[in-house]
Amino acid sequence: MDILRPQPIQPIPENAKRVFKGVIFDIYQWEQEMFDGTRTIFEGAKRADNVTIFAVLPDGKILLTEQEQPGKALFVGGTGGRVDEGEDALTAARRELLEESGYIAEDFVLWFSQNSLPKVDWTVYIFIAKGLKKVSEMSLDAGEKIKLLPVTLDELINMPTRKDIYFSEHEIILKLIEAKNSLEKKKELEELFKPLEK
Amino acid sequence: MDILRPQPIQPIPENAKRVFKGVIFDIYQWEQEMFDGTRTIFEGAKRADNVTIFAVLPDGKILLTEQEQPGKALFVGGTGGRVDEGEDALTAARRELLEESGYIAEDFVLWFSQNSLPKVDWTVYIFIAKGLKKVSEMSLDAGEKIKLLPVTLDELINMPTRKDIYFSEHEIILKLIEAKNSLEKKKELEELFKPLEK
Repeated sequence: MDILRPQPIQPIPENAKRVFKGVIFDIYQWEQEMFDGTRTIFEGAKRADNVTIFAVLPDGKILLTEQEQPGKALFVGGTGGRVDEGEDALTAARRELLEESGYIAEDFVLWFSQNSLPKVDWTVYIFIAKGLKKVSEMSLDAGEKIKLLPVTLDELINMPTRKDIYFSEHEIILKLIEAKNSLEKKKELEELFKPLEK
Repeated sequence: MDILRPQPIQPIPENAKRVFKGVIFDIYQWEQEMFDGTRTIFEGAKRADNVTIFAVLPDGKILLTEQEQPGKALFVGGTGGRVDEGEDALTAARRELLEESGYIAEDFVLWFSQNSLPKVDWTVYIFIAKGLKKVSEMSLDAGEKIKLLPVTLDELINMPTRKDIYFSEHEIILKLIEAKNSLEKKKELEELFKPLEK
C-alpha cells in the first residue's frame, strides 16, 4: 500500500527558513509576495503527523479506546498516536494498535487522510484494521492510561454528538453524521467495517 | 455582550516557558508529570485567534466571501480574519466585517466559539451580524482578494460537501449538515439567520 501524504491547504514554500525546532512543532518563516508586489513575513507550523486506527474485531465490533493523558480530560477515540520521525504512516498504525491494544491485524486499509488546517502542516491518517489477533498485553508509556472500548457500528454512528469524543479528524464526525442520516452512506460504512471472512 | 474565551482541550500550564515567539505562533514547553511520576517535556502552541462573521443582509441572504490569499487556493467562507493582539473578539468581528465588505451591523450575536485542537490553543469565534448598512467600500490589505457572495440559507446548508469551502471551524459544517437532515435543526438556523425586523 503506497500512502501519499496530502498537501496542506497553505504549503510552506521550499525556501522557507525553519526558525524554531521543537518537540512537536517546527516553525517556518518566509517572505511572501503580496498581490501588490510588496513582501510580508509569513509563518507556518509543521507538526508531527498522527494515525488513528479503527480496528474491527472478529465479532464485528469496532475497537475504540477510552484514554487519559496528563493534563487532558478523559476522551474516547480510536487507537492511535503520533508518527515518529522517519516512520511511515502504516508502520506507525501497526505500532500504535499493538502498543495500545495488544492486537496485530492481517489487513490495514487507509480510510482517508487529511491535512486541513490553515497554517499548520499536519496530516492525520485514518486506518481500518481487520483480521485482528491478540498477541500481547497493552504496552503503554507513562503518558497513557487506556481502556479498550468495543462498540457496534450503530453505537459509533451515534457518538458524534457526545462531548467526550475526540476522533482527531473532523472528517470522521462528518462521515458518521452522514451515515446516521442516509441509508446509502450507512451501507458504505457497514461494508467498510465488515470483519474479514474466515 | 461578554464573550468568554473557551478553554483549550489541553491547557498550557501557567508555569510553562515560552520558547518561541513568532508572527502567528508562540510555542511553550513545560515539564509534565507522567502517571508513573517521571517527568517529560511537553509542548504546546498558542496561535492568534480568529473571527468568522455570517452577516445577514436585509433580504435574508447571508453574506459569504470568495477569497484568494497568497499561496492558498481560492476558498469560500464568511467574512473574518485574525484577532489582533490586545483586541477583543467582538471588536475584531466589527473591524473584519467592515474591512472585507464595507458593511457595519446593528446587531452582533456570538453563535458559538470553539477551541478544539489538540496541543494548539486557538479559538475561533463565530458571529451572526444583522441590521447591515453599507457605509464604505472594501478596504483590503495586500494579502487579500475578496469577492462578496450572498447566498440563501438553503444554499449555505448545501455547501458542506463542496471542496472549496473553508469555514475555519468544523463545528459549522456539522451544524449545516444537521440542518440539512433535520427539520427541527433547520428551523433553528432559520430563526438564527432571520433578518432584523424594521
